[in-house]
Amino acid sequence: MQIGLIGLGRMGGNIARRLMLDGHQCVVYDNNADARAALAKDGATAVTSLAAMVEALPTPRTIWVMLPAGEITENTIGQLTEMLSKGDIVIDGGNTFYKDDVRRSKVLEQKGMHYVDVGTSGGVWGLQRGYCMMIGGDKATVDYLDPIFATLAPGAGDIPRTERPAGADPRVENGYMHTGPAGSGHFTKMVHNGIEYGLMQAFAEGFDIMRNRNQPQLPDGERFDLNVADIAEVWRRGSVVSSWLLDLCASALAKGPELDNYSGYVDDSGEGRWTIAAAIEEAVPAEVLSSALYARFRSRQEHTYAERLLSAMRMGFGGHIEGRGQPPKQGEAS
Amino acid sequence: MQIGLIGLGRMGGNIARRLMLDGHQCVVYDNNADARAALAKDGATAVTSLAAMVEALPTPRTIWVMLPAGEITENTIGQLTEMLSKGDIVIDGGNTFYKDDVRRSKVLEQKGMHYVDVGTSGGVWGLQRGYCMMIGGDKATVDYLDPIFATLAPGAGDIPRTERPAGADPRVENGYMHTGPAGSGHFTKMVHNGIEYGLMQAFAEGFDIMRNRNQPQLPDGERFDLNVADIAEVWRRGSVVSSWLLDLCASALAKGPELDNYSGYVDDSGEGRWTIAAAIEEAVPAEVLSSALYARFRSRQEHTYAERLLSAMRMGFGGHIEGRGQPPKQGEAS
Amino acid sequence: MQIGLIGLGRMGGNIARRLMLDGHQCVVYDNNADARAALAKDGATAVTSLAAMVEALPTPRTIWVMLPAGEITENTIGQLTEMLSKGDIVIDGGNTFYKDDVRRSKVLEQKGMHYVDVGTSGGVWGLQRGYCMMIGGDKATVDYLDPIFATLAPGAGDIPRTERPAGADPRVENGYMHTGPAGSGHFTKMVHNGIEYGLMQAFAEGFDIMRNRNQPQLPDGERFDLNVADIAEVWRRGSVVSSWLLDLCASALAKGPELDNYSGYVDDSGEGRWTIAAAIEEAVPAEVLSSALYARFRSRQEHTYAERLLSAMRMGFGGHIEGRGQPPKQGEAS
Amino acid sequence: MQIGLIGLGRMGGNIARRLMLDGHQCVVYDNNADARAALAKDGATAVTSLAAMVEALPTPRTIWVMLPAGEITENTIGQLTEMLSKGDIVIDGGNTFYKDDVRRSKVLEQKGMHYVDVGTSGGVWGLQRGYCMMIGGDKATVDYLDPIFATLAPGAGDIPRTERPAGADPRVENGYMHTGPAGSGHFTKMVHNGIEYGLMQAFAEGFDIMRNRNQPQLPDGERFDLNVADIAEVWRRGSVVSSWLLDLCASALAKGPELDNYSGYVDDSGEGRWTIAAAIEEAVPAEVLSSALYARFRSRQEHTYAERLLSAMRMGFGGHIEGRGQPPKQGEAS
Repeated sequence: MQIGLIGLGRMGGNIARRLMLDGHQCVVYDNNADARAALAKDGATAVTSLAAMVEALPTPRTIWVMLPAGEITENTIGQLTEMLSKGDIVIDGGNTFYKDDVRRSKVLEQKGMHYVDVGTSGGVWGLQRGYCMMIGGDKATVDYLDPIFATLAPGAGDIPRTERPAGADPRVENGYMHTGPAGSGHFTKMVHNGIEYGLMQAFAEGFDIMRNRNQPQLPDGERFDLNVADIAEVWRRGSVVSSWLLDLCASALAKGPELDNYSGYVDDSGEGRWTIAAAIEEAVPAEVLSSALYARFRSRQEHTYAERLLSAMRMGFGGHIEGRGQPPKQGEAS
Repeated sequence: MQIGLIGLGRMGGNIARRLMLDGHQCVVYDNNADARAALAKDGATAVTSLAAMVEALPTPRTIWVMLPAGEITENTIGQLTEMLSKGDIVIDGGNTFYKDDVRRSKVLEQKGMHYVDVGTSGGVWGLQRGYCMMIGGDKATVDYLDPIFATLAPGAGDIPRTERPAGADPRVENGYMHTGPAGSGHFTKMVHNGIEYGLMQAFAEGFDIMRNRNQPQLPDGERFDLNVADIAEVWRRGSVVSSWLLDLCASALAKGPELDNYSGYVDDSGEGRWTIAAAIEEAVPAEVLSSALYARFRSRQEHTYAERLLSAMRMGFGGHIEGRGQPPKQGEAS
Repeated sequence: MQIGLIGLGRMGGNIARRLMLDGHQCVVYDNNADARAALAKDGATAVTSLAAMVEALPTPRTIWVMLPAGEITENTIGQLTEMLSKGDIVIDGGNTFYKDDVRRSKVLEQKGMHYVDVGTSGGVWGLQRGYCMMIGGDKATVDYLDPIFATLAPGAGDIPRTERPAGADPRVENGYMHTGPAGSGHFTKMVHNGIEYGLMQAFAEGFDIMRNRNQPQLPDGERFDLNVADIAEVWRRGSVVSSWLLDLCASALAKGPELDNYSGYVDDSGEGRWTIAAAIEEAVPAEVLSSALYARFRSRQEHTYAERLLSAMRMGFGGHIEGRGQPPKQGEAS
Repeated sequence: MQIGLIGLGRMGGNIARRLMLDGHQCVVYDNNADARAALAKDGATAVTSLAAMVEALPTPRTIWVMLPAGEITENTIGQLTEMLSKGDIVIDGGNTFYKDDVRRSKVLEQKGMHYVDVGTSGGVWGLQRGYCMMIGGDKATVDYLDPIFATLAPGAGDIPRTERPAGADPRVENGYMHTGPAGSGHFTKMVHNGIEYGLMQAFAEGFDIMRNRNQPQLPDGERFDLNVADIAEVWRRGSVVSSWLLDLCASALAKGPELDNYSGYVDDSGEGRWTIAAAIEEAVPAEVLSSALYARFRSRQEHTYAERLLSAMRMGFGGHIEGRGQPPKQGEAS
């Protein structure tokens, strides 16, 4: 198929490349000339404006927007909506808030256009491994785009097959899925990321508990000098916690179990926050997913105001004066 | 009554003073000569050894040990047990782990002595306000010691009376209570402190949320310039959250709403930890009490190992390079 | 002053009564005729429509809307906005979402009217004790309404005074406060309720831990037969956790420590949820406030879907078959 | 090698079978005659008492105890210690608390015997897939037992290799690891299970959030009719959350996405609890691992006492009467 691709960052660029490797033709745009040139070298037709892209594509046009969620995506899709024609398709492959998809899809629908939201997982590994895609939109459009998704998806690979009911959608086993109407793709991807935060935090806490058994001041029987890199590695084989995230832990810990090169300032993207918002809307308890998000918030601060207020209350009722700027006294109970 | 008091720190010294102000006679010991001298000036008989205290007291002796929980209390009570006689009473007024009380009380019982554990709340205000006491031990001994407890307790004060069933224990309205067998006093005090951590953390989080609405970069309609000192003060009158801890917040915030003089390194004592251990033994969910404890643990560290592992995993799947030593980017969603 | 009051439920009716007891004149409306009649008997002028209220009040009019937050408040204020004149004041005393206040206040401002949002705490006790009020709106309007607020507020009472800086707003010590621009009153009340949930949950967990020590099957040294009603009562005197919520615990437990008459289905109102949403917007960790909210969500369900999925995973890796409908096996470790 | 195996349950029986399939000779004991007979049919020498096992094995003897953690394991190892000789080896392959290992290993060491603790993951799949093993004990003994562990381990399989430092222990890539001194094997396995709880709860919450979007009463744009079975399946390919636990979710959901056959009463074993105890000893925040444990506690109860106390407080300050036995009102905000 022929497809336009807007946004040639790490994700967008590799999506174009994976499409072209499988014979699709890509018209690409990015406001960065180097990014355009790199893709042109790899076989894409690079254009220098949205208008040029609209002109370059045959109707009905298919344009995949792969930009940071928020204002820039909103504006780009807004501009496209003004330029495109009835029957054209806009795909938002970024990390858009699902309620924005629902809203936008209605706008496009009124103009006879089609809106498809694709939640995409796979990170920097997608070019080789393929992208796991959760796709929201009307059935006819998603079916029409199947060649694109089939190319981008990782395929069945050698992953053991699940026993599924007769008639189950075979696309799912290839790593892509039509999740439902517009918004449902990003909703599903949002929860995916919420879960991802929870899984990461579970590993992080567990390794922290193990690594703290290595402190020299601990008495015999309490100190174990655990090789956390080897522990991650051994769990990769046959244990219940084996997972891609564990693979990443093993890989990082093998390079240096103290992780000295990592800051511990942990960013979060919108999906983790929106997942909690969705849970609260639904009255679903989401302790673990919330805690994982809060751990990231906390990681980006020195002392919080909340903690200073705790100190102040302790001073008030007990006369406790707590150190300022002292080295952390981990493990100490006063 | 005549009573021996071991440990003349902030708590022990004031307990002796409050007893003497009400006519009790105190024989006191501390290994710090200044502390002994200060109490002697206030009317106590200061002795320079445990043996001297045992000698100075008439039988049956009553000795109140008011030392830091752990080894020093354990050793002191161990030595006393060797020196005392049948019928004597040992009171542990510190923050002892309740299982230690159960164990010790059995040792004393076998020697015909009595063990009483007193959980004491009231902090630095106890001398004037009195101490809220939760008392574990055999009924006869606790009844015998009633004059001591009646003096130390805050009394009914002008606190509105609760409608209680006929025959309810009147001592409770005066601020002291026989909670049950040995260990039950410290168990009750332990849970008290667990709850205290939870209450403190609830206030701390709430004020943090309010104070964060004052950031200059927030747009109109989002920024409120809230006077958090006044908010604490106004809530003291008629609101559902009015409490002593709120009084302390109001007082601290009135002195400077930014709390710049407080470190935010928040210590924890054994009771908070043991409360969680008790909850887990009982299979009682204790989310809030645990979170309050963990917030203190976290407050005493720079970046945790857990957070560095999160950074490492993010690097692994997304190529995210996170800043090290950058100023905290609070409120940023990437 | 003369004031219109819309909504004569538990809160609105008592607000009118407290105002009239202090000499204010109330024109009242409710769509329930009995509610109108009850207030008329207590001295109010009852009207049978919004239009009649607008007609009955002298300009500039002051109308206090005390209705459930959401659609009904929104519609009522919308209708009022059409009927009122320049200079009139609309007060929303309900539990409105603060962003709705910000929006509405702009609409009214454009018409030359004034919007005031009043977060009100005090529950069913407000008629006697007064209401703690957090007031958002423009300064001139809030100052103009001072006689109303002064009447409704609890006053300084005999609550010990906090040492406050010179020039601190004296209204605050009487239990009401101008928190800032429109929206800030409900924002402050929202966080108040978020904190309230956290405080309640801290007490709830702590008493659960204590009450679980009373189970007959526990061995000596583990079982304490704690009188939880007396414990709540004793803590009311001199302990760090003394608070209004503790008073309520003491009162409820005195009537029956097993709390058999209470369902344990715990509702939540919008404020608890919005507090978490605000925390997430601000990237403030709010573990305790979130956990308190989730405990309520969980309390309203039998088994969650999440729990069934845990059972299913356990079946998958371990062949664990878990009982369905068996009596809860609290405290059991398998 | 020749090895004795005590405890022929699901785990112990399959361990014996996997050993015999690889040419090891097993002397087996269980107090259940059927279990003994089944293993005898598969080639083991079944004996009818511990004494008979001790007699049947050549010195130095190796005996693997595979019994439920706690009293029965403690007693069995205690009896063995009386019967065995210098140089003999006792392996505890159960889920023993690591501090019990430390204690026991000292007892055996004084008698010249060797104690090895093996944390074993792999569940019912171990016979075919092999067991992931974390092994604590002295180096010489663990090396001596290598043929046993090599047989039981899953082997390297086709799992992609991690780039490890030169000289890294090759056994780890085969799925078994000498973690350090006695106790360290079970400590590592304990944390493994703590992490497992966290991972499971993250998936459980996420799927609960998705499934709640399928409720018929939701408006368009909010309701998605998500096929959660297909979502689990699609995430198995290329997504960041791919893992064995996700495989299990996919498998269970494919059989019926409502999971009606699962109770939602979720048991917990000691490891989850001990992990939190270890975290608290070390002052490591473990929000996610704790929440996962508490969710299981909560799942085994109808309404908690804590929740009834919340109802009681709400009645106290607001006159809220909450339904008893009403259908859960999920998603309702009052």
